Amino acid sequence: MNVTVLGIGLMGLPMGRRLREAGFAVTAWNRTQEKALRLASHGARVAHTAAQAVRDADVVITMLENGDVVDSVLFGQGVAAVLKPGTLVIDMSSIRPAQARQHAARLGELGVPHLDAPVSGGTVGAEEGTLAIMVGGDSSAFERALPLFKALGRATHVGPHGAGQLAKLANQMIVGITIGAVSEALLLCARGGADVGKVREAIRGGFAESRVLELHGQRMVDGDFIKRAALTVQLKDLRNALSTAAELDFEAPVTALFEQLYASAAEHGFAELDHSALFKELARRNGM
Amino acid sequence: MNVTVLGIGLMGLPMGRRLREAGFAVTAWNRTQEKALRLASHGARVAHTAAQAVRDADVVITMLENGDVVDSVLFGQGVAAVLKPGTLVIDMSSIRPAQARQHAARLGELGVPHLDAPVSGGTVGAEEGTLAIMVGGDSSAFERALPLFKALGRATHVGPHGAGQLAKLANQMIVGITIGAVSEALLLCARGGADVGKVREAIRGGFAESRVLELHGQRMVDGDFIKRAALTVQLKDLRNALSTAAELDFEAPVTALFEQLYASAAEHGFAELDHSALFKELARRNGM
Repeated sequence: MNVTVLGIGLMGLPMGRRLREAGFAVTAWNRTQEKALRLASHGARVAHTAAQAVRDADVVITMLENGDVVDSVLFGQGVAAVLKPGTLVIDMSSIRPAQARQHAARLGELGVPHLDAPVSGGTVGAEEGTLAIMVGGDSSAFERALPLFKALGRATHVGPHGAGQLAKLANQMIVGITIGAVSEALLLCARGGADVGKVREAIRGGFAESRVLELHGQRMVDGDFIKRAALTVQLKDLRNALSTAAELDFEAPVTALFEQLYASAAEHGFAELDHSALFKELARRNGM
Repeated sequence: MNVTVLGIGLMGLPMGRRLREAGFAVTAWNRTQEKALRLASHGARVAHTAAQAVRDADVVITMLENGDVVDSVLFGQGVAAVLKPGTLVIDMSSIRPAQARQHAARLGELGVPHLDAPVSGGTVGAEEGTLAIMVGGDSSAFERALPLFKALGRATHVGPHGAGQLAKLANQMIVGITIGAVSEALLLCARGGADVGKVREAIRGGFAESRVLELHGQRMVDGDFIKRAALTVQLKDLRNALSTAAELDFEAPVTALFEQLYASAAEHGFAELDHSALFKELARRNGM
């Protein structure tokens, strides 16, 4: 099976490598070609243009920065025009659900099936092949993509076109809000004279346990807010969730509050930090 | 070591039984004596009054409904008056931190050391001896209590008097807010046409993973909101957190929003349900 990967960045590179290791013929393209060339040593063919890269593809994977870039690569750089009917396009970028549905509709008119399949797990998950892959689209396309997904992580078919992107937004909402819950709770304890590291330790293993309490909670205790996942990306995700909620006439009071809190954090000097630096914003508001 | 347990309810009963099994001499008292008699078959002595129960105690454990009941039993029913100086009082009830500090101060004047040591883990944790015990008070008292705590679960010394109750409030804040995060995220997915059960499955194991997503998230998917932990108790806990925050001049915007949301849930017919029924309140607001 010929697989073309468009976008060989922090995620696309290890994903392409894993596909090669699983035995797929891989063609790579990236806007700045040097990045794509890193896949050549793993046996991938490197194309000069996106349109050339997809010419013989059975499956095209896009792993790009945002929805507008996906839009531009698919429809602005001639990719859609040269795809054979029946070529499967899997967009693994994180984009707005509405835009994913538009891409599926436009490609559908050309006889090209589409899946939205954003991931969670970061570069470590991509390298280890343990990504959580949230997939929206038709069952037949999902089944067809399964051998590829198996090389990359654990895929779950969560509904029709756009549902994968909705699940990704849900993931980001939960992470962003849980960071706020742990921040506010630990800061209240600090204000009252408790040992915050000991409090975190005491409540782990109970109903308050989460990956956020484990990982981001430790960063709060250590005062270590070096960027792993950017606070500005968290803010963008919450804004995408709110615009999606507005399109669906859905009131989301918790997400609305957190959009304000993360925006305030970005305005007050924490934009370049990890999203767990919401802790610093809540501390700042309390003169701590 | 003679241990007296005041309050033989849903929690006090299994805790008293575990103390007996660990070899402690246990004296039990409960306002309605029949409940205390259930411990007699495990070899506990049952006293008629709280004051009689503590007369020969080395350690007194209180496991009562709220701070005012603890207040009344300690100072209204003559317990404090008959305690030998040096008797250790461990209040394992969940009460306001300020009230715990008052109890410690009043007992301290009588030469009676005090620990606030609320627990998390529910009746299952009490039965299995796996409670998370959050302890505030002096290190010497904490060390003295450790053999008892070991029979009941895992104890962590989190700071001075009141700090155990602060940690318990932090625990409740995190649980209550995380329930809201999972509710709002899953409802947005449902509104957008995704399969909510599949979404929950897809995001488990990633950064959004939590005990709440695992347990309460499953209840949301199943529509099963039968009470395990009461929504009204969650509301009371958030109100205690807010009053504690006010005493400490601490702004808690997330907890403040959730107090409103849980209060609205209670007003709209969900008061008798589990706290995970916040899901139903957010659904109601969205006509779902």
